[in-house]
Amino acid sequence: MRILIINGPNLNLLGKRDPDIYGNESFEAYFLKLRDEFSRYHIDHYQSNVEGELINKLQQADGSYNGIILNAGGYTHTSVAIGDAVEAIDIPVIEVHISNIFAREDFRHFSHISKHAKGIMSGFGLDVYRLALLHLLK
Amino acid sequence: MRILIINGPNLNLLGKRDPDIYGNESFEAYFLKLRDEFSRYHIDHYQSNVEGELINKLQQADGSYNGIILNAGGYTHTSVAIGDAVEAIDIPVIEVHISNIFAREDFRHFSHISKHAKGIMSGFGLDVYRLALLHLLK
Amino acid sequence: MRILIINGPNLNLLGKRDPDIYGNESFEAYFLKLRDEFSRYHIDHYQSNVEGELINKLQQADGSYNGIILNAGGYTHTSVAIGDAVEAIDIPVIEVHISNIFAREDFRHFSHISKHAKGIMSGFGLDVYRLALLHLLK
Amino acid sequence: MRILIINGPNLNLLGKRDPDIYGNESFEAYFLKLRDEFSRYHIDHYQSNVEGELINKLQQADGSYNGIILNAGGYTHTSVAIGDAVEAIDIPVIEVHISNIFAREDFRHFSHISKHAKGIMSGFGLDVYRLALLHLLK
Amino acid sequence: MRILIINGPNLNLLGKRDPDIYGNESFEAYFLKLRDEFSRYHIDHYQSNVEGELINKLQQADGSYNGIILNAGGYTHTSVAIGDAVEAIDIPVIEVHISNIFAREDFRHFSHISKHAKGIMSGFGLDVYRLALLHLLK
Amino acid sequence: MRILIINGPNLNLLGKRDPDIYGNESFEAYFLKLRDEFSRYHIDHYQSNVEGELINKLQQADGSYNGIILNAGGYTHTSVAIGDAVEAIDIPVIEVHISNIFAREDFRHFSHISKHAKGIMSGFGLDVYRLALLHLLK
Amino acid sequence: MRILIINGPNLNLLGKRDPDIYGNESFEAYFLKLRDEFSRYHIDHYQSNVEGELINKLQQADGSYNGIILNAGGYTHTSVAIGDAVEAIDIPVIEVHISNIFAREDFRHFSHISKHAKGIMSGFGLDVYRLALLHLLK
Amino acid sequence: MRILIINGPNLNLLGKRDPDIYGNESFEAYFLKLRDEFSRYHIDHYQSNVEGELINKLQQADGSYNGIILNAGGYTHTSVAIGDAVEAIDIPVIEVHISNIFAREDFRHFSHISKHAKGIMSGFGLDVYRLALLHLLK
Amino acid sequence: MRILIINGPNLNLLGKRDPDIYGNESFEAYFLKLRDEFSRYHIDHYQSNVEGELINKLQQADGSYNGIILNAGGYTHTSVAIGDAVEAIDIPVIEVHISNIFAREDFRHFSHISKHAKGIMSGFGLDVYRLALLHLLK
Amino acid sequence: MRILIINGPNLNLLGKRDPDIYGNESFEAYFLKLRDEFSRYHIDHYQSNVEGELINKLQQADGSYNGIILNAGGYTHTSVAIGDAVEAIDIPVIEVHISNIFAREDFRHFSHISKHAKGIMSGFGLDVYRLALLHLLK
Amino acid sequence: MRILIINGPNLNLLGKRDPDIYGNESFEAYFLKLRDEFSRYHIDHYQSNVEGELINKLQQADGSYNGIILNAGGYTHTSVAIGDAVEAIDIPVIEVHISNIFAREDFRHFSHISKHAKGIMSGFGLDVYRLALLHLLK
Amino acid sequence: MRILIINGPNLNLLGKRDPDIYGNESFEAYFLKLRDEFSRYHIDHYQSNVEGELINKLQQADGSYNGIILNAGGYTHTSVAIGDAVEAIDIPVIEVHISNIFAREDFRHFSHISKHAKGIMSGFGLDVYRLALLHLLK
Repeated sequence: MRILIINGPNLNLLGKRDPDIYGNESFEAYFLKLRDEFSRYHIDHYQSNVEGELINKLQQADGSYNGIILNAGGYTHTSVAIGDAVEAIDIPVIEVHISNIFAREDFRHFSHISKHAKGIMSGFGLDVYRLALLHLLK
Repeated sequence: MRILIINGPNLNLLGKRDPDIYGNESFEAYFLKLRDEFSRYHIDHYQSNVEGELINKLQQADGSYNGIILNAGGYTHTSVAIGDAVEAIDIPVIEVHISNIFAREDFRHFSHISKHAKGIMSGFGLDVYRLALLHLLK
Repeated sequence: MRILIINGPNLNLLGKRDPDIYGNESFEAYFLKLRDEFSRYHIDHYQSNVEGELINKLQQADGSYNGIILNAGGYTHTSVAIGDAVEAIDIPVIEVHISNIFAREDFRHFSHISKHAKGIMSGFGLDVYRLALLHLLK
Repeated sequence: MRILIINGPNLNLLGKRDPDIYGNESFEAYFLKLRDEFSRYHIDHYQSNVEGELINKLQQADGSYNGIILNAGGYTHTSVAIGDAVEAIDIPVIEVHISNIFAREDFRHFSHISKHAKGIMSGFGLDVYRLALLHLLK
Repeated sequence: MRILIINGPNLNLLGKRDPDIYGNESFEAYFLKLRDEFSRYHIDHYQSNVEGELINKLQQADGSYNGIILNAGGYTHTSVAIGDAVEAIDIPVIEVHISNIFAREDFRHFSHISKHAKGIMSGFGLDVYRLALLHLLK
Repeated sequence: MRILIINGPNLNLLGKRDPDIYGNESFEAYFLKLRDEFSRYHIDHYQSNVEGELINKLQQADGSYNGIILNAGGYTHTSVAIGDAVEAIDIPVIEVHISNIFAREDFRHFSHISKHAKGIMSGFGLDVYRLALLHLLK
Repeated sequence: MRILIINGPNLNLLGKRDPDIYGNESFEAYFLKLRDEFSRYHIDHYQSNVEGELINKLQQADGSYNGIILNAGGYTHTSVAIGDAVEAIDIPVIEVHISNIFAREDFRHFSHISKHAKGIMSGFGLDVYRLALLHLLK
Repeated sequence: MRILIINGPNLNLLGKRDPDIYGNESFEAYFLKLRDEFSRYHIDHYQSNVEGELINKLQQADGSYNGIILNAGGYTHTSVAIGDAVEAIDIPVIEVHISNIFAREDFRHFSHISKHAKGIMSGFGLDVYRLALLHLLK
Repeated sequence: MRILIINGPNLNLLGKRDPDIYGNESFEAYFLKLRDEFSRYHIDHYQSNVEGELINKLQQADGSYNGIILNAGGYTHTSVAIGDAVEAIDIPVIEVHISNIFAREDFRHFSHISKHAKGIMSGFGLDVYRLALLHLLK
Repeated sequence: MRILIINGPNLNLLGKRDPDIYGNESFEAYFLKLRDEFSRYHIDHYQSNVEGELINKLQQADGSYNGIILNAGGYTHTSVAIGDAVEAIDIPVIEVHISNIFAREDFRHFSHISKHAKGIMSGFGLDVYRLALLHLLK
Repeated sequence: MRILIINGPNLNLLGKRDPDIYGNESFEAYFLKLRDEFSRYHIDHYQSNVEGELINKLQQADGSYNGIILNAGGYTHTSVAIGDAVEAIDIPVIEVHISNIFAREDFRHFSHISKHAKGIMSGFGLDVYRLALLHLLK
Repeated sequence: MRILIINGPNLNLLGKRDPDIYGNESFEAYFLKLRDEFSRYHIDHYQSNVEGELINKLQQADGSYNGIILNAGGYTHTSVAIGDAVEAIDIPVIEVHISNIFAREDFRHFSHISKHAKGIMSGFGLDVYRLALLHLLK
């Protein structure tokens, strides 16, 4: 069972940016704990600020992983192309957001990814990654 | 630790209505399995088709439970009053949807509850209830 | 052949409210005449001002009646939940309106029920109930 | 008692076009049966694909018929001029649609005719013509 | 002179919910003081979280009271059916809101009741009930 | 100096349709008086209910008349094709409306013709034709 | 206790303009009665048709009065600048409208002033001024 | 017979501003010629850039003139208050625009004045004033 | 192989109307060259300014031609009825526009025909007809 | 080199109104410092709360100044007439806003002036005036 | 004669993704056949999932190619920057889409590229590339 | 004092693209002059057509520069992700545009960056960079 976590733009700033919204733990620190908790599985992590590189990675993961946990950050709301990539690949993709995007600006309420995802989780802080894993590993 | 699951209109038809969208397991059958899996906790379930009774129950749960998992069904998209009730109470409320509401009609993409919820889960079939519990019990 | 007529909010005021729009005959008086005209069939009538009770009745009618004539009154335009109930049940539902809703305020032009109904009739005064019956009994 | 049925664009294809939406009976075949059923009344039928000819016919019918059953087809949604003609004439006009226009594309939900019509029927297949007759002949 | 105050959903939480918006006095406590101040008149109070029960009460009040002060809470913005009930009854209805609904979310700026009310008051805290009474009793 | 007046759908009903809006004089009667008043000029009149015939006439008039007074009736608000014809021809076109279209329904406030016309007159009753002539003949 | 009533454009026509909407009493006549009723307080009145003069007066009143009752007439719906002035000053401003603006044209439903006002009253005829006074003097 | 021409903001620049849109004749020069042509009538002219002064003048003209020709310039599209003044007075008001406002920016297509005017003329250059006079003097 | 080219309103003016947009070659001249180039195939041409006649022709072509190249001119953007006809017939229809409709007014960006067409070409001048032929003949 | 600074409604309150948005320095104090810094140039300042007086001043400045720095305050978002005046005059106008209008309410994001201005500056506090001067004097 | 074909995001999946929409031939296979058919010309092909790299390539092609055939995939609907690049370069760009984008989701109906393109082709499957070539090579 | 200028897509074409909008000086040439004028400060310049690389650079600049001058070109209007990056970093960012974006297409009037910027400058040609520097260096 191989799972890939893909994080989009500005998520490399986790722990530094808006701690009241995103908390003050870096994703790297959190990821180590996550790997510990799910040590029986193969879990990878990829981050990029470049829209097209996220598409590249989504395409490459198809076939080599059993599922993807995707936090596309700001591209969630603007990228038809990432939405198309999610639709095009065969393995399940779970869309996650650390903050509750529905309690923020209106433009964050729409996602080009949601309708092609197996499910969406928004809010819950970093715990969304664990919950998404728990569903995929079931 | 006491958790209340509140289900709204037409969710009493689960297993009968649109099995391709909602699956063919009744909520009662699922709930028994859920209680088994989380037998160390107190988990209750309430269902009503009446908007105002859901509000009554949300108000009453405040203080007697540690958290609420709310699937408000069709009222999700139309009820300012349920949204106000969720905002008014102090215990955390998690909004769940069995189907992926973002892959369905446009009017199902908006929720009066989301901005007052601790988090939202949509899709994943009946597994949303388990995932929401896993978060609340953490 | 068993048909159920379900009337929603404020239709118990028929004959009293806005006689220039709805006429001045009460539904009870009209219903007696209707039963006379269709005495070979079993026709029942239910009215409630509570949205959830209309949903309860729609669910219960499924299986015990051959068709429903539904005038959901003001809930027509706002109730996703009643629309979901109409979609969920198996027997045909005909949506009727005594007044011509398209000649009234804009918000009355949209119905959450229409797309799940077998057909819609609007205008014609109380005669809509008879016409709907004539179609169901064909 | 003289009634005129006016059918608009593409309704001459009835029985050939989209049989899953419109059935596979031609209007001519149906009309013969209708005339048989209502043999005590004078019922005529007119069809044209030209918007202005439908207006001509509506104007001419005023005075020589007691009522009109109008299925304006695609012009229903775009023709202010037909709506004006319906408003201008004195005999009652009933708007009918064979398919349930509210279960189809959004642009078919609006009608320029409805607010000037005595009533609207949508869905019910070809039976709408019989039901409209039953109302006019009452 | 008999006046009925009708309060809608979540107004039973007054004094507990969002004290910075609604103050921290319960309606019951306020109502006692109001009755004292207007001891020469008959003033009643009714609260429900159920939309349909508010409609029932509005219908019943017609004839037995001289006026209604209605705070429909969250249903103000979503209920065509309550608006219809206010339109249908003969005694004057004054629409009140404790908070300034125009300084809050956009969806609270629209009311289905206003156009059928004798007047609207929004803001002023609990004093709106007294002011509405002063107008009705004039 | 040769001027052509072109009238669109339902204007042949002038004097019969909605006399409170359009007055009760037929266009033919008015036209005779107009010809008398401007007997030194050649003034013609054409009416059709068919959109395409109005386009034909507009195209033919180009070259044989010095100006056109166009009342396109209900096509004013829906016909891109008539607007294109007005743009395509070289002689000046004045758009006139007998009633004040801005005091009527919203859909009558937009015209596909206006931006290609030399000027627009709306209201003034039948006097618009005389005023338009007075401008063209200047 | 010093209160200033500010009336905006066309309110100098009160008693003359649209008596069915605004009544047929002039504001001056009403104001004399109001002063009589509240003779223990200092109440002033100012009217102008000029937007900027209303802003001048609002600014000047800040500090010399204890509260303002503002009926900005037609500027209510269009003036960001008056809204800014109301926000900028420190004494409470109550927004009043003699007619029920929510039962009139859509553009009268929005106010630039409301969100900066202590409260809004609409409808009640001239009695709004007395009710606003009763609140301010409390 | 006394007619008042009222010109609004920036119309004092006529002949200087955008000569390709408005021509290069000043209004004063044109007005002299107009008075010559209609020397049997009393025609006055008033111009102001201040919205409230235009309202003052409209109110004052009521009773002392037989009709008003109003070119409200940029206030046409934004002033509810001028529209209210036109509605409030009893003598007929004709709305004129020198340029074709429907061939310009979208925001110039809407007028707060039109629905209260006897008629609207747009385009025709300065000739609109003469044409409006010809109608009023008829 | 038989192909029919159908041209809609104002395309008979080709070569005369807006030469900078449509070029200055008449369609007849172009059509002769096209027939020469594709002399091995049977190619016909039909033009009408009447919407209903275009519908008639589309219906008649079904069965007697192998494909249609349709330039519906201004009806492209307004005609539900032509869109319905294209959907109703069985042979492939290619929608073409000589000018780039997406570089012109907003209302030309929407077509009622496109979703029922095999493909759309816009721009390229008269060469669209040749390109459409090259696809159909493949 | 002569430059005129024009300030609109409520800017006379600078230093008093919302100090967290506008700072607590009055414009007069700031203007003295600005004049000192640019003592080699002639810089004037004008403020009014009256829309029409701002238009008067803009028209008068044309010809007697080399450039205008315009902060139209709340009129920025509502005044077609000021926008027309800016377009009509020949000297360059720079639009400035002390606060960042794009970080405030939506209605402040639109300006009727911008498209006629040489450039726009928003934010930077009172420093916008100096920066605008630096550009004009270049 | 040198032509460059540029393909955007996810078009490297051609033949794998949604074969019912895009067919099951890879672009590489198709491109070989295309080069064979047009062996007298120099035709190149470039694909990238990165928006900025598509811009880089468009800029570089300007001067070294005679024309570009651009299928920008999902970026078509969201990229102002690619639209700007197409506008900025001097050689003609033809916009193509393999599927009929007007028969798909609404957000695919708008293109930032179209108004700067020489022409648009949508539908026709992979044949769009050949047709675009045939036009460019003419 | 270290300042970084970041230029987005197509700004490498400055001096070549649309000289009437952007002038015909390349940014490199202008930058040399700017460095000369501000030789006492450290000023760097970065350009990329790739959205994600602009985000990378914004993140890296945080801490090593005292301020950023950002011209995000076409990404200004579409990139939530760049807006998020601007919000996430601590040093002040000034948004600049060489052309007056408010005098161009509607979609250029909205910026995802503005509300997170210290200030916005639009228009003024290349002088915006100097003015932004003058503010940052103050």
